[in-house]
Amino acid sequence: MAVHIAPLSPLHLADALTALGNLLGKRLSTSQAVRDQHGTDISHMPPAAPDAVAFAQSTAEVAEIVRICARHRIPIIPFGTGTSLEGHITAPFGGLSLDVSQMSQVLAVHTADLDAVVQPGVTRKTLNTYIRDTGLFFPIDPGADASLGGMAATRASGTNAVRYGTMRENVLALEVVTADGAVIRTGGRSRKSAAGYDLTRLFVGSEGTLGVITEVTLRLYGIPEKMAAAVCSFDTLAGAVDTVIATIQAGIPVARIELLDDVQIKMLNDYAKLGYAVKDTLFMEFHGTEAGVKEQAEMVQAIAADNGGGNFIWTTQAEERTKLWQARHDAVWANMQAKPGWGIWPTDVCVPISRLAEVVLETKRDVVEADILAPVVGHVGDGNFHLTVLMKPDDPAYLAKVEAVNDRMVNRALAAGGTCTGEHGIGIGKMKYMDAEHGGSVAAMQAVKRALDPHNIMNPGKIFPALGAALTSA
Amino acid sequence: MAVHIAPLSPLHLADALTALGNLLGKRLSTSQAVRDQHGTDISHMPPAAPDAVAFAQSTAEVAEIVRICARHRIPIIPFGTGTSLEGHITAPFGGLSLDVSQMSQVLAVHTADLDAVVQPGVTRKTLNTYIRDTGLFFPIDPGADASLGGMAATRASGTNAVRYGTMRENVLALEVVTADGAVIRTGGRSRKSAAGYDLTRLFVGSEGTLGVITEVTLRLYGIPEKMAAAVCSFDTLAGAVDTVIATIQAGIPVARIELLDDVQIKMLNDYAKLGYAVKDTLFMEFHGTEAGVKEQAEMVQAIAADNGGGNFIWTTQAEERTKLWQARHDAVWANMQAKPGWGIWPTDVCVPISRLAEVVLETKRDVVEADILAPVVGHVGDGNFHLTVLMKPDDPAYLAKVEAVNDRMVNRALAAGGTCTGEHGIGIGKMKYMDAEHGGSVAAMQAVKRALDPHNIMNPGKIFPALGAALTSA
Repeated sequence: MAVHIAPLSPLHLADALTALGNLLGKRLSTSQAVRDQHGTDISHMPPAAPDAVAFAQSTAEVAEIVRICARHRIPIIPFGTGTSLEGHITAPFGGLSLDVSQMSQVLAVHTADLDAVVQPGVTRKTLNTYIRDTGLFFPIDPGADASLGGMAATRASGTNAVRYGTMRENVLALEVVTADGAVIRTGGRSRKSAAGYDLTRLFVGSEGTLGVITEVTLRLYGIPEKMAAAVCSFDTLAGAVDTVIATIQAGIPVARIELLDDVQIKMLNDYAKLGYAVKDTLFMEFHGTEAGVKEQAEMVQAIAADNGGGNFIWTTQAEERTKLWQARHDAVWANMQAKPGWGIWPTDVCVPISRLAEVVLETKRDVVEADILAPVVGHVGDGNFHLTVLMKPDDPAYLAKVEAVNDRMVNRALAAGGTCTGEHGIGIGKMKYMDAEHGGSVAAMQAVKRALDPHNIMNPGKIFPALGAALTSA
Repeated sequence: MAVHIAPLSPLHLADALTALGNLLGKRLSTSQAVRDQHGTDISHMPPAAPDAVAFAQSTAEVAEIVRICARHRIPIIPFGTGTSLEGHITAPFGGLSLDVSQMSQVLAVHTADLDAVVQPGVTRKTLNTYIRDTGLFFPIDPGADASLGGMAATRASGTNAVRYGTMRENVLALEVVTADGAVIRTGGRSRKSAAGYDLTRLFVGSEGTLGVITEVTLRLYGIPEKMAAAVCSFDTLAGAVDTVIATIQAGIPVARIELLDDVQIKMLNDYAKLGYAVKDTLFMEFHGTEAGVKEQAEMVQAIAADNGGGNFIWTTQAEERTKLWQARHDAVWANMQAKPGWGIWPTDVCVPISRLAEVVLETKRDVVEADILAPVVGHVGDGNFHLTVLMKPDDPAYLAKVEAVNDRMVNRALAAGGTCTGEHGIGIGKMKYMDAEHGGSVAAMQAVKRALDPHNIMNPGKIFPALGAALTSA
């Protein structure tokens, strides 16, 4: 089943652009370079430039932009930092890219309530720098320095999710401009509520298909008294994964537990001039009191030793820890540098933890058999891992092999009771797996979509295929 | 704005009852006693009996029941244990009470993945008894031994929510029969997913207005190595509340931190023959390793001492701890016994923690001024507290005073950025506060309702007022 979109009429587009130009002046751009940049994310998905790009500076402006586009049935594609990984920000039906990066104010920090209110263009690193002196931090950390609006829209997570949850658990409230240009507020600042439908969680992960997020209220956390990171390499991949599984099953509140396989460690060593043993390796972090961290670390060390793990290499200095996690986040750039001129395809599946070892090992065997370059990294404490596949340019045979490996990996994850995407979202790239994962509930999702966006102007052709492609102005 | 409901035609009702009788035999009841019991919850809301009660035993049966009711436009009111507190299970438009209490199987316990799959009629205590030998437990504990389907439907929580979250955080997946009789599955068993709309969170808290929950997948937790409970009484209510606030702000992972005011302690002492000092009191519980619990306890003791708290009275034996929390859960029964023949009205607001002291103290002053009997209990670690108002029978003047106190308390909570209900839900009783709390997003909720239940047969007249009352068969 697909969601219909009306054909984009060139006449309507011209009228809409005139009205938008009157509203925004130079903050409406139709330059080819700006359009191309806004139609290209960092994935392998085909770029598709919008007809124009609007740079909004306030909620009122977003609402007026949406009203103009609604009147003329012009697609709207919300844009934060453009770091999405499944083609979320491309414009396959043309229309307007609505760039909110200039809405970048931290509106409030409530230190006593452990929350902050931000505009959608604030990035995660900007927020953490802003609140540095409050003793609080915001833990969710996808690899890129993504915008918080975009992170909410894609239900992002990262290395800290095993302890602190994902955007699902950490967005308390939203302000959203809906498809008719109304400004609504979902949720509130109390820790819990049983008052009506959970629209906050409905918009989190809706990838711009239900409305434009114009404000985000986020949970913050006290910076722990003690934080310590450790690196441990293993004789076998199974040993590393089994260590993770046993740690989670024992209920040890590890803050981060990340897997990098030997292939990934080699590329990271080469890129960042590091000297890690080229083995399957866990990067870990422990948060708590001095005594609590010591206790957690001892428990995990015992588990690792039982599974063929080597000594823990410890890092407790803040600067060194930051470097360690920067290295982890740099994995994707390391891989891009490993083969100059090649691209990357970051895959993303997540499974129940009891099935993790089996799914990772089978996938790894498949990678070797297919003879593709695909290091494994993963937020394995959640059962989530990625192949960061290196993509040979202009080689259809190689591409076909990668597509087949990804297909088999997704099907393996679904068969294990998991999901086709742990944290990247559906975008365009994962639409074909929606039915296999969700079955009949896709119809319920589409009913919600039609109810809140009857003309399918909000990021059409994402999450669900849209009919009408042949009729667009593209 | 209201959601329309078609008039219930006596002819259609008769046809539907014939079809339901053919399907269910003796498990369809039209006896007055059964109908009355199913139209009455434990709140002060006016009872309203359904036209019939169906006792379903399988998902397939629920689906067939819904299809019959959909064909004849008969309202369906899902029923678990009938322990809701805002009139959720009453039948103001007549129709069918769909009792799922006979769907009471624990379908699977995945100890390695820390989850369980249950039918909706399994109660929280039954689940915990069932998994007793696995070393795991399910923490969510509303006062009553409610059904897990009902707890999901009302987004319930309880004393452990400060550490373990509410049903929002602890339902991983659902099976739901939608208003057209389709059986859908939302979510999965992986810890996180970014695949499409979060229908699980949409159905959690939807109070039976979007579909009938027929299966619930829940998170479980390892039973901590050490659990210790403590009771501490305070010179002032402010001291008790400030202790809670400081504990939360310090990030101490207390498992339970419950307030009972002096009025409540007196009634509990009388009911359960306990000897607590008649003072404002905190009941607390700490979970963790031996050392972790000791450390948490020491930190909270220091905070309490700074705020006029007395000595901690400790309970570490499992049996004694169970007794302590049973006493806490018995508060509502204690209050009912304090005035034989009186009823109760359990109110429910939740605010950001920084505003808790002020909102509790103003409410308490208001109770004294209004001269009503209304002990304070609360899951104050979440900013959530209740007046359990004792209701004098047949006294409109007393009722008016209580209504005014509740109104002022809700408005005070909303003005503080809080919610009209932390955990009881909207039902009928809180409908009048929806606009004040949610503003324009109520229209978005109603659009979702209309999309998923176009004929408004799913628990009509709950959460949103329904038009058409004058036309029903009642």
